[in-house]
Amino acid sequence: MEELKKYVSVKDDQFYHQGAVELLVFNFLLILTILTIWLFKNHRFRFLHETGGAMLYGLVMGLIIRYAAKASDVGSGTVYECEKLKSGPSNLLINITNQIYEYQYKREISHHNVNDAQGNAMLQKMAFDPSIFLNILLPPIIFHAGYSLKKRHFFRNLGSILTYAFLGTAISCIVIGLIMYGFVKAMIHIGQLKGWEFHFTDCLFFGALISATDPVTVLAIFHELHVDTDLYTLLFGESVLNDAVAIVLTYSISIYSPKENPNAFDAAAFFQSVGNFLGIFAGSFAIGSSYAVHLTKFTKLCEFPMLETGLFFLLSWSAFLSAEAAGLTGIVAVLFCGVTQAHYTYNNLSPDSQMRTKQLFEFMNFLAENVIFCYMGLALFTFQNHIFNPLFIFGAFVAVFVARACNIYPISFLLNLGRKQKIPRNFQHMMMFSGLRGAIAFSLAIRDTESQPKQMMFTTALLIVFFTVWVFGGGTTPMLTWLQIRVGIDPDEDLKAETASQSASNLDKNTTKTESAWLFRIWYGFDHKYLKPILTHAGPPLTTTLPEWCNPLARLLTSPSAYGDQMKDGNTDYILNHDELAENFESSAHIPVPAQDQTGSTQSTGKEDIHEGDLGLGAYKLQLEHPAGQPKMNSSA
Amino acid sequence: MEELKKYVSVKDDQFYHQGAVELLVFNFLLILTILTIWLFKNHRFRFLHETGGAMLYGLVMGLIIRYAAKASDVGSGTVYECEKLKSGPSNLLINITNQIYEYQYKREISHHNVNDAQGNAMLQKMAFDPSIFLNILLPPIIFHAGYSLKKRHFFRNLGSILTYAFLGTAISCIVIGLIMYGFVKAMIHIGQLKGWEFHFTDCLFFGALISATDPVTVLAIFHELHVDTDLYTLLFGESVLNDAVAIVLTYSISIYSPKENPNAFDAAAFFQSVGNFLGIFAGSFAIGSSYAVHLTKFTKLCEFPMLETGLFFLLSWSAFLSAEAAGLTGIVAVLFCGVTQAHYTYNNLSPDSQMRTKQLFEFMNFLAENVIFCYMGLALFTFQNHIFNPLFIFGAFVAVFVARACNIYPISFLLNLGRKQKIPRNFQHMMMFSGLRGAIAFSLAIRDTESQPKQMMFTTALLIVFFTVWVFGGGTTPMLTWLQIRVGIDPDEDLKAETASQSASNLDKNTTKTESAWLFRIWYGFDHKYLKPILTHAGPPLTTTLPEWCNPLARLLTSPSAYGDQMKDGNTDYILNHDELAENFESSAHIPVPAQDQTGSTQSTGKEDIHEGDLGLGAYKLQLEHPAGQPKMNSSA
Repeated sequence: MEELKKYVSVKDDQFYHQGAVELLVFNFLLILTILTIWLFKNHRFRFLHETGGAMLYGLVMGLIIRYAAKASDVGSGTVYECEKLKSGPSNLLINITNQIYEYQYKREISHHNVNDAQGNAMLQKMAFDPSIFLNILLPPIIFHAGYSLKKRHFFRNLGSILTYAFLGTAISCIVIGLIMYGFVKAMIHIGQLKGWEFHFTDCLFFGALISATDPVTVLAIFHELHVDTDLYTLLFGESVLNDAVAIVLTYSISIYSPKENPNAFDAAAFFQSVGNFLGIFAGSFAIGSSYAVHLTKFTKLCEFPMLETGLFFLLSWSAFLSAEAAGLTGIVAVLFCGVTQAHYTYNNLSPDSQMRTKQLFEFMNFLAENVIFCYMGLALFTFQNHIFNPLFIFGAFVAVFVARACNIYPISFLLNLGRKQKIPRNFQHMMMFSGLRGAIAFSLAIRDTESQPKQMMFTTALLIVFFTVWVFGGGTTPMLTWLQIRVGIDPDEDLKAETASQSASNLDKNTTKTESAWLFRIWYGFDHKYLKPILTHAGPPLTTTLPEWCNPLARLLTSPSAYGDQMKDGNTDYILNHDELAENFESSAHIPVPAQDQTGSTQSTGKEDIHEGDLGLGAYKLQLEHPAGQPKMNSSA
Repeated sequence: MEELKKYVSVKDDQFYHQGAVELLVFNFLLILTILTIWLFKNHRFRFLHETGGAMLYGLVMGLIIRYAAKASDVGSGTVYECEKLKSGPSNLLINITNQIYEYQYKREISHHNVNDAQGNAMLQKMAFDPSIFLNILLPPIIFHAGYSLKKRHFFRNLGSILTYAFLGTAISCIVIGLIMYGFVKAMIHIGQLKGWEFHFTDCLFFGALISATDPVTVLAIFHELHVDTDLYTLLFGESVLNDAVAIVLTYSISIYSPKENPNAFDAAAFFQSVGNFLGIFAGSFAIGSSYAVHLTKFTKLCEFPMLETGLFFLLSWSAFLSAEAAGLTGIVAVLFCGVTQAHYTYNNLSPDSQMRTKQLFEFMNFLAENVIFCYMGLALFTFQNHIFNPLFIFGAFVAVFVARACNIYPISFLLNLGRKQKIPRNFQHMMMFSGLRGAIAFSLAIRDTESQPKQMMFTTALLIVFFTVWVFGGGTTPMLTWLQIRVGIDPDEDLKAETASQSASNLDKNTTKTESAWLFRIWYGFDHKYLKPILTHAGPPLTTTLPEWCNPLARLLTSPSAYGDQMKDGNTDYILNHDELAENFESSAHIPVPAQDQTGSTQSTGKEDIHEGDLGLGAYKLQLEHPAGQPKMNSSA
């Protein structure tokens, strides 16, 4: 994208074609990756995932560019003085030998980076703009993750996932921060890092950014081998939410500014940071989930899948942009937007659009992921300000390992105290093993590489990504065998079996199995009774779930098809059997309608409205007698 | 995209959020457009197409921004002197009050534009980079056009389409150039355009860029109403190829540089321009069509639709970039890449990928188109260097009208001399009417708005686009009625009926109907006998079509399934009846195999190869006896 930017912005022929050539190099690498991966998949080699392959090819290409290309750009590397300006304007007009050139503000640059940064024009051109990752490439990846969360299993394990994501990431961040601070102290002691400013907050910053796990390689193998769904969900859910936490945490730490001594603890600033974290997180969550439009509920856009898909895409992107414009984090917003879209909007879409949106984001995810990993490989040789410090790197590897252990084992122990279905030892080991680092850690690290500590962190983060993706990613299959984790499970079978036992148990309010249940049950009840009917065509009619005095509103918001659609709640959340359903609704459905007819207190909405309500319930009763068919409300209304 | 660029490149918070806000404005406009269009489609109003709607909303938003936003950017508008530099480097480092800022080269700017261009920061921010259109937004549109050309009807009318596209566009360009030159002379005469340089080549330049028709609105209605397929194909094919011609023509004219007097005719420079045109066109064509990979024929990528789709996308993009990198025009390359992909690669893809690629490009086309039209609306008020010259605008409208008439009627007359199935009068009127101007004319006009003549051309082109899209686009349905053009034709019915009569006639070498046939027949024969079998799994085995001495190569290149797949040539190009097929192959299939067995001259390829050839033909004969079934070659081999 930075390539695109360069490509489109410079008209001069030489630069112009340069841009095309660079993009071609990238395309070529990605094509190579695809072909290699096809070869591997065809032969069922599972030790190299496409992201690993992309990284490898990037690495090779970086090596070639590094040592084959020559410095050629004349005139850069020189700093010009300008006394007339007080600050950098966004556009600068410069008169050079009677030709006026327009320059666009790019960035502030540190004095110590001026020389290295300007050395090799080719390397410079191969460098993406760092903010591209967080603003262009990551959002589709994160959205896709949110959009493809296995809903049922996700909500069932919600408590555990949230604990891993919030508490676990916080633990990981602090543990890494502390260990790194120890190493930094030691490095200063032995005389490295002379003249650097390296505070505890910097260590925490590193801890936060490297805490974002990205087990895409592992998850791909899990998916392929049909590993136990609970393990998959725990790991996937943790990694998705943990990204959001790590991103907001990194941001909160980077704006933590104690008033006086940066090394001393400043309670006010600390609490302000905590407040920032909570505020940003909650705000982004709110914006993201509010974009799950019920627009799609009342428009019959489903006749035009292209319009529907377009609307879906634009709204999701708007969620990102709104959060950014409001000074929050767009990525978190887009994640929750994805989750809510999957949960509500998805059900309003036409089948055609459901597939289109899924495939579109799958494709964008695929491309973006491979571009990032390919670029990581490239960056190892083409990034010009690497600082390899063996001690720091060693420290980071130790810290990451220890922090992962401090995250998984204690939290699993705590969770097992409350969970009906325990997280077994081998699952814990697998989760420990699956703490890969990837795109998010890299994107956070590359965002700011101005100061030397940040450059050292970037280099270290890159090495950690390489190591974990190749070693742990490649070792997933042997590890699964070694830990005797069962594979080849059909998730639908699993679901049906459990649903059968659970639909009985849950409605009887007896939890017999599987649950960290209370959170799930509260959520499920609220969601099923109120949110689903308001936002989608599914769920019980609101007239039956809301209190009496809300009836006019309820009838307005309830989709006509809700009265009938009940039984085939497309969502596979629950497959209720008919007895239960009948029972469930005979008890509740009788209350509102007669009450309304008798009291007449809600007649302000007019007769048509009441009629529609009646009709709805009438049809619903009809539906109970003929559960297979679905009455067309539109034709009879 | 320029928005994206701004968005990602500037870190400073204020600018950063500004970028998000601008993109949000765009998203908002597009969402509005989608909802409006849904409303219109739902009520079957056909007078406003989504592109027209996008333009309208863009216009309104432009008006708001124009008069509601205030100038705020301090420091821009001032030109700084720099004596130390001799030319503009790509990156500039400037020391401002001891902080070093990096600036990126954006463009050269004319002296007379310095003041207006810098007035309003908001307007400036709303301006896309002009090269975005040709490099980012148009390629998917053009590719999609090529990819969705109705193949059979397209090739059947190939001669007519090529004539309209090449000869017609050339006529249009010259006629407009001449008329505009007259108007310019008149304007100079009455004292307008003082001090401007306005040569005949500039007029021709305008003629070339405004000759690119874009009847997207009309075609959408045609598609919806199922208008006569031949008319649709003629119009669609003309508009698609004519874009390519206009783009290359514009480029050729812009680099036409006579040595001495720019007003005098310079034969050498003229022929160089013609040579340029032919070279660029042929080169782009070659690059574009060479990316129709038979990579996909031999890899069994179809088991992994995501990889396949990714590969398809990357290869198509590579076609564009390769052409650009080679100094040719990427758009033309991408167009022919689309056509060839549809003709060959498409048949090698798995059904899943066929749908994915179609939907992906459909979606990209939809978004890009609406962004461009929305931006056009915006540009009418936010572009800061408009030059409205009533006489020039009037002249341009007249010229466009006259040129379209000089294009369609004489060429149709000529074509009808040769065509079996004449182009009727009402079709000609409809084609005359459908000469809308759109995205390509706009993109070509906005690419260079430095000099005053170019600014005047841009303004005029914009107005022509507005007028034609709204007036002619909106008037399509009444016009169809008025011209009594039949609608509601099922293209498949049409196809079957004609195919039945034609498959008999064509193979007997008697053309009874419809054709400007000789070009088509030559092409079809070559394509069916050689290209299809080489590039796809379809078509007759190469062993039967190539001369004897090519047998080893032929057997290598022929897909095993070609021997059997024959009959169900998925392409609907021809549905041959079995007698013909049998006859066709009994005559040709006997020759190569015995010849090879007797002479032994081609045994260098080994026995397996021969065996496979035999097996293939054996199975093929089997297939003739049981035409309904399709033998699985893989299982028996």
